[in-house]
Amino acid sequence: MRLRNKPWAKDLIAANPQWILVNPVGMQGKWQSRFAQKQPLSIEVGSGKGRFITEMAQKYPDRNFIAIEVQESAIAMVLKKQVDLQLDNLQLLLGDGAELTEYFAPEEVSTVYLNFSDPWPKTRHEKRRLTYKDFLKQYETVLQPAGELEFKTDNQGLFEYSLISLNHYGMEFDRVSLNLHQSQWADDNVMTEYEQKFSAKGQPIFQLCAHFK
Amino acid sequence: MRLRNKPWAKDLIAANPQWILVNPVGMQGKWQSRFAQKQPLSIEVGSGKGRFITEMAQKYPDRNFIAIEVQESAIAMVLKKQVDLQLDNLQLLLGDGAELTEYFAPEEVSTVYLNFSDPWPKTRHEKRRLTYKDFLKQYETVLQPAGELEFKTDNQGLFEYSLISLNHYGMEFDRVSLNLHQSQWADDNVMTEYEQKFSAKGQPIFQLCAHFK
Repeated sequence: MRLRNKPWAKDLIAANPQWILVNPVGMQGKWQSRFAQKQPLSIEVGSGKGRFITEMAQKYPDRNFIAIEVQESAIAMVLKKQVDLQLDNLQLLLGDGAELTEYFAPEEVSTVYLNFSDPWPKTRHEKRRLTYKDFLKQYETVLQPAGELEFKTDNQGLFEYSLISLNHYGMEFDRVSLNLHQSQWADDNVMTEYEQKFSAKGQPIFQLCAHFK
Repeated sequence: MRLRNKPWAKDLIAANPQWILVNPVGMQGKWQSRFAQKQPLSIEVGSGKGRFITEMAQKYPDRNFIAIEVQESAIAMVLKKQVDLQLDNLQLLLGDGAELTEYFAPEEVSTVYLNFSDPWPKTRHEKRRLTYKDFLKQYETVLQPAGELEFKTDNQGLFEYSLISLNHYGMEFDRVSLNLHQSQWADDNVMTEYEQKFSAKGQPIFQLCAHFK
């Protein structure tokens, strides 16, 4: 989802270096110093307006979270929320999900979340899908050995593709749901903005959780 | 699906040894001798009334097929069809899908079909599901190295379970469809009795095709 340009975004980002870093190459291995406590670190690649990550940070105070977004107008919306919330277990990162290994040290992360990523339905755009093998390679590098990749989407084509892509990469599936909101995991599920709007229409949400072997 | 007992089943089976074998332990490696031509062999585990396998045999005369069913009343329905059709590339087997390696030699089979298998939804019945690892072990043994397992179902729970079970077994996915009848493979799809009835209600049919590595 591409958001309208926000003229105030640049200034807000510049004014809040304690909450957000821009293209933070060189932060590898140092992220824990940005949080109040040293705790397991979860990152969301493609945070959109940040409803999911801010709610997760509030729900799980014993974990640290980083919202990663490549769109300035989107991360500025997350930052606006964080300026209000002042959550000491949440940090923001304006940067490219394709550069994860530039931002994080090997095994620095315990969970990677991908929520309603752009489906890029055309075959020639396969490499842009966040479950394409080049992205999986990055998640594998930054994740701890038992670390989890948690992916959800409403897009059937992207979900079918991702099942095959993760399987071919050799990942081991831990959870598959073809209707997350009607499943045993529904109560614990934290929704994104898009997910709440979309699921109100009664369409199923798909989820796949897996780890690297 | 359990069918009503058919009093004529036993006699029909006894009268047609050229089309059907009962619990044929010792036939390992000899199935090609039962067909008009030596051709790649596909088996369906749980053929029900046999609409799928008889249509496949007609559609693909350059392949041999075996309908496997544990229920006498069901295989008798398939046999009735075959007595009319006299397809020289179709054989029937009354026996237990759990005994495949008693019936077939290693690598004797090129494709295994599982269609709308009993979902056995209770956890304590997991071992009865045809995608449980003990069954996968049997398919692996009788299938040729590049041989394919093709599975379809309308049952969401069984499909989710099977995605995980095949992935954990180390199988490589070739095709995943969450709505087979609306997919690029719809035109080639041969439907079972149940599938035709069920899909008329607009519910999706799931398909997973995979091979052993």
